[in-house]
Amino acid sequence: MKLALVVRTDLEMGRGKIAAQVAHAAVTAALRNLGSAAFKAWLREGQPKVVLRVGGEDELRQVCEAAAGAGLPVEVIRDAGRTQVAAGTATCCAIGPADAGAIDGVAGSLRLL
Amino acid sequence: MKLALVVRTDLEMGRGKIAAQVAHAAVTAALRNLGSAAFKAWLREGQPKVVLRVGGEDELRQVCEAAAGAGLPVEVIRDAGRTQVAAGTATCCAIGPADAGAIDGVAGSLRLL
Repeated sequence: MKLALVVRTDLEMGRGKIAAQVAHAAVTAALRNLGSAAFKAWLREGQPKVVLRVGGEDELRQVCEAAAGAGLPVEVIRDAGRTQVAAGTATCCAIGPADAGAIDGVAGSLRLL
Repeated sequence: MKLALVVRTDLEMGRGKIAAQVAHAAVTAALRNLGSAAFKAWLREGQPKVVLRVGGEDELRQVCEAAAGAGLPVEVIRDAGRTQVAAGTATCCAIGPADAGAIDGVAGSLRLL
């Protein structure tokens, strides 16, 4: 099991900002999937996470669409815009928790952040 | 309401590693406090987070002890040690979700990551 967190690098967010956005995505994904068997299995395995990068909004959207098309849980995070990026900007997404192989099927070609 | 995520900078973790550790802390704090009034209020407010820095293990422990002493929820994250740091190393902690003023009372002097 795995939770993939996919971050845009073109926004040039600092490491604290990135960490906050990724945490937001992970918490949202966890809360949205509390009842699922995949979530429970993921939690039992120590909630494994992988943080990946995309170069821009189009690439983020493509990955999210592929994940949704494969039936995986997807959460896109839009920033409130109080710091660093404009309000409503999609900064990152969470894919999963789900079977690691299924996630690799849609995000396996992305590089680690 | 606020969730503070406090990260050690002396471990020289990369930004992806930091994001994964902070996400782990945030998810753990959320799951541990699901039933609390503070958690529900924090969620209603859009789950505000602040990512702060400490210079080492002693400083991390001191902040955690101060937070626990003030009755705030505290979760310390220890790394599984598969990458970058030794197994069992305390990398970061979550304080809250709790009243922002109460968190500032124990972590207000820390710098943003």
